[in-house]
Amino acid sequence: MPVRLIHNNYGKARVRLMKVARKGDLHELQSITVKIAFEGNFTEAHTIGDNSQLLPTDTMKNTVYTLAQQTQEIEEIEDFALRLADYFLTNNPQVTQVIIEIYEKPWTRIAVGGELHLHSFIKGGEEKRTAKITSTRDGRTIESGVEDLVALKTTKSGFIGFVKDCYTTLPETTDRILATSIKASWIYANPAVATGNMWRDVRQTIIETFAEHDSLSVQHTLYAMGEAVLEKFSDIVEITFSLPNIHCLPIDFTRFGLENDNRIFVPTDEPHGLIEARLSR
Amino acid sequence: MPVRLIHNNYGKARVRLMKVARKGDLHELQSITVKIAFEGNFTEAHTIGDNSQLLPTDTMKNTVYTLAQQTQEIEEIEDFALRLADYFLTNNPQVTQVIIEIYEKPWTRIAVGGELHLHSFIKGGEEKRTAKITSTRDGRTIESGVEDLVALKTTKSGFIGFVKDCYTTLPETTDRILATSIKASWIYANPAVATGNMWRDVRQTIIETFAEHDSLSVQHTLYAMGEAVLEKFSDIVEITFSLPNIHCLPIDFTRFGLENDNRIFVPTDEPHGLIEARLSR
Amino acid sequence: MPVRLIHNNYGKARVRLMKVARKGDLHELQSITVKIAFEGNFTEAHTIGDNSQLLPTDTMKNTVYTLAQQTQEIEEIEDFALRLADYFLTNNPQVTQVIIEIYEKPWTRIAVGGELHLHSFIKGGEEKRTAKITSTRDGRTIESGVEDLVALKTTKSGFIGFVKDCYTTLPETTDRILATSIKASWIYANPAVATGNMWRDVRQTIIETFAEHDSLSVQHTLYAMGEAVLEKFSDIVEITFSLPNIHCLPIDFTRFGLENDNRIFVPTDEPHGLIEARLSR
Amino acid sequence: MPVRLIHNNYGKARVRLMKVARKGDLHELQSITVKIAFEGNFTEAHTIGDNSQLLPTDTMKNTVYTLAQQTQEIEEIEDFALRLADYFLTNNPQVTQVIIEIYEKPWTRIAVGGELHLHSFIKGGEEKRTAKITSTRDGRTIESGVEDLVALKTTKSGFIGFVKDCYTTLPETTDRILATSIKASWIYANPAVATGNMWRDVRQTIIETFAEHDSLSVQHTLYAMGEAVLEKFSDIVEITFSLPNIHCLPIDFTRFGLENDNRIFVPTDEPHGLIEARLSR
Repeated sequence: MPVRLIHNNYGKARVRLMKVARKGDLHELQSITVKIAFEGNFTEAHTIGDNSQLLPTDTMKNTVYTLAQQTQEIEEIEDFALRLADYFLTNNPQVTQVIIEIYEKPWTRIAVGGELHLHSFIKGGEEKRTAKITSTRDGRTIESGVEDLVALKTTKSGFIGFVKDCYTTLPETTDRILATSIKASWIYANPAVATGNMWRDVRQTIIETFAEHDSLSVQHTLYAMGEAVLEKFSDIVEITFSLPNIHCLPIDFTRFGLENDNRIFVPTDEPHGLIEARLSR
Repeated sequence: MPVRLIHNNYGKARVRLMKVARKGDLHELQSITVKIAFEGNFTEAHTIGDNSQLLPTDTMKNTVYTLAQQTQEIEEIEDFALRLADYFLTNNPQVTQVIIEIYEKPWTRIAVGGELHLHSFIKGGEEKRTAKITSTRDGRTIESGVEDLVALKTTKSGFIGFVKDCYTTLPETTDRILATSIKASWIYANPAVATGNMWRDVRQTIIETFAEHDSLSVQHTLYAMGEAVLEKFSDIVEITFSLPNIHCLPIDFTRFGLENDNRIFVPTDEPHGLIEARLSR
Repeated sequence: MPVRLIHNNYGKARVRLMKVARKGDLHELQSITVKIAFEGNFTEAHTIGDNSQLLPTDTMKNTVYTLAQQTQEIEEIEDFALRLADYFLTNNPQVTQVIIEIYEKPWTRIAVGGELHLHSFIKGGEEKRTAKITSTRDGRTIESGVEDLVALKTTKSGFIGFVKDCYTTLPETTDRILATSIKASWIYANPAVATGNMWRDVRQTIIETFAEHDSLSVQHTLYAMGEAVLEKFSDIVEITFSLPNIHCLPIDFTRFGLENDNRIFVPTDEPHGLIEARLSR
Repeated sequence: MPVRLIHNNYGKARVRLMKVARKGDLHELQSITVKIAFEGNFTEAHTIGDNSQLLPTDTMKNTVYTLAQQTQEIEEIEDFALRLADYFLTNNPQVTQVIIEIYEKPWTRIAVGGELHLHSFIKGGEEKRTAKITSTRDGRTIESGVEDLVALKTTKSGFIGFVKDCYTTLPETTDRILATSIKASWIYANPAVATGNMWRDVRQTIIETFAEHDSLSVQHTLYAMGEAVLEKFSDIVEITFSLPNIHCLPIDFTRFGLENDNRIFVPTDEPHGLIEARLSR
């Protein structure tokens, strides 16, 4: 029975770059990390070590740097990803599909005497703006998203009426902390709408819904956030969430003869719940 | 246009536990981390916050601890995962699919005066033995694997004959360091063969092939490892690899008037190549 | 020759807690991590296992939780650290010195329709506000600081006129990116001035100086920042900086027949420069 | 009041390198990370940006690579650190003190058919062998050590007779898991004894003592390990330990109507105890 190669892809990951755009004394800064994956006819590279169809991942990296330099302006990550995908497909006939994933981490201008500085910046948090382009010669899919957007509400979250069995120890509660690290991504109906403003509007819709929702469970809030996005943005066809439940455990002060009044909590990294869903129209 | 929930799952991640088996003075130790994901009819939990079909993830965690305690012996992680999946399916009619993922990190006995100690251990490395059980009422799939198995060979690796374009700077080489962090997983034809001995034999076949292979590319060595496993173990139906290329860059000593003799390298974490493939019969 | 115990301390690290202060519907949130270290007469705990002088670290943890609960208000971390140190010294005669270290990570209110939300928050970045109290029955030292405050300027930074030797390859430059992760801590002349406003003012002075400085080296900017703080705040007696030089390497585009115009950089985590100094009056 | 620079140092951190020694077909591999810190007269670099006394950290890095290349053999990290310190002091009159810190991570040969392979290796764990050389023109101190050596014993550890107060909830126990991540470093009386065999003997003494000790507390075991080293090795003048207490919490099965039999534990990363001491003769 011969061995068959039923799927393969290769590429370069963690290509970091920082781009400076200079408009006179005003400098703009963008910090991104790029991942590239090729699919195509690479069977003989695997079976007999024939590399004649392989564009080295080192060359992919150099291409990222050079295409970044080709534009003076800071570019939306979706646009840069599309340019990269187009370049690779155009110049590599052996490649059938290119996936480009980019995330951008925020930097904010330092304020000096109340004025935003022209060329000095502070790094923002771990939150990432993400873009994923899946491109073939027949079409392309554009998915934007957020990752590591940690959100917390100190009330308007409960969890009751769940299944009980012999291993149940979790008490029902109508007032708990709800904390999660939002990972969400949404697919656009067409590339033209994938702008930075759109991204900011979707992100804002997600966090406003999180803030305002009367949560009966993580699932309930997840659905509310997805529904709000799909109802508000007709150019979005699908949205996916992955939400860890970052448990913030109340301390039991009755052990010290004190009353529990729901003010001191221990946030825990593990174990954690994980709630995932995809919504479409 | 109404919103539809097109996929969802939930569960508990990073449930760590340590199990001690006592055979008189001889103690055995197992350190595992469990992840559980349920699929089922949870639509109303999302849409209206009705939790009546939700087994809390806290209860899942308690179930892991209790089922671990039910056996005195240290259990293969595949067997424990199967027991967990069976338990959850049997006791939760609303659940249609359970996925259990477990990884185990190695501990080794301390040698005292050349004798292995009865109850004292040193933690091994970051390498993980993994198991993933996907279980429905119609059947179950068993996938075992390794992760973070970092392997390196100082010769018998080259990379030549690849595509060149205007962004090519990588020199061809017939003698380079090949380093990777092996992530591999394989699907067994049936649960009965998923033993610890089998796992050790597959792992050994992978690393022996890595060591002995005359590598013309990462793809070439990936394929050789997969082929060796599929040829040797008829009970394995499919194997998947994800292999970062951990570049070890030679220093250019000609800048200091010295000769390059391929002895001093800088290992780099980023950027890195990433080569992935799945092989079957 | 007998063995002597020449120094020892013990305590609890990574005691995380989240405190919620409720003012009607307006909730405030504080996220801190506490470390406690005791020095004292613990010799016999070491030499013969006599624990009669040891307050368990588990009890230290419980004390942190309970003292946090004793105040309804969110407390400056310096004040909380002082309360903890006082409590431990008062109640543990066997303890001669207590060191309390606390760091706080920022959370910001979610804006909903332009209004700050009453009880929903987004986690800020990795930047930490730090406090360290060293307390004995004779006095106490208060040190506040920042950590992981990543700052970058895209111009007004150079590095020329340095020592050259046979291993020099670094080119002189009058225009480079300067990036660092600021770790700074300063000692107050007396506890009363250790307020949140003071902390914010010192932090602001540091980053404004970073932004405005014409940097001839990391050392040069470090000194400027320290000098600015000491000149502005007479209640600060000493300031210490630890500044990694996060190298942002310009890509050499001449390899691709293009011009180098100082716009695309590769930020690197390793290796990195590390510049440290302490300034006083 | 003028500002004074009361201490300063600078250098390069995280200089990773991999060295291959070739003895015909037999290859040896060493993976190290070097940190360099200079002290000296660098005042004017800080105060006026005069870099004429600064050897760039980039040059330090190049020097590490080149001095590594100067020996064909794999060198003990203490010897390499001494060579580096000597080189820097000899060639930089403005430098008064050099501190070199190196850690080495283990790699082991892959066994193929029971034989150790000539040029293929698997990365060992996170345990580090460390060396720190503090060198001036008047002398040098040599400190060797281990870090991240995680050790655990499943019995022969208790903790009783400690201080109780109103916040005590920890039960006394005469049989618990003791787990720690050993960080230890020891100072040699003279450089000549700082060999790899010595390092291995000291490490073995530490872990054998850990394994065999009837532990009444972490302090008690720390002292026993230090005492064993100082008694056995007359060339060691001082040893320092930093031992986190990695709590492994027993599950309370009585909540599920089961008996607690001390077999299932939850290892936790935070909070953790931290026990530190220094011993000399």
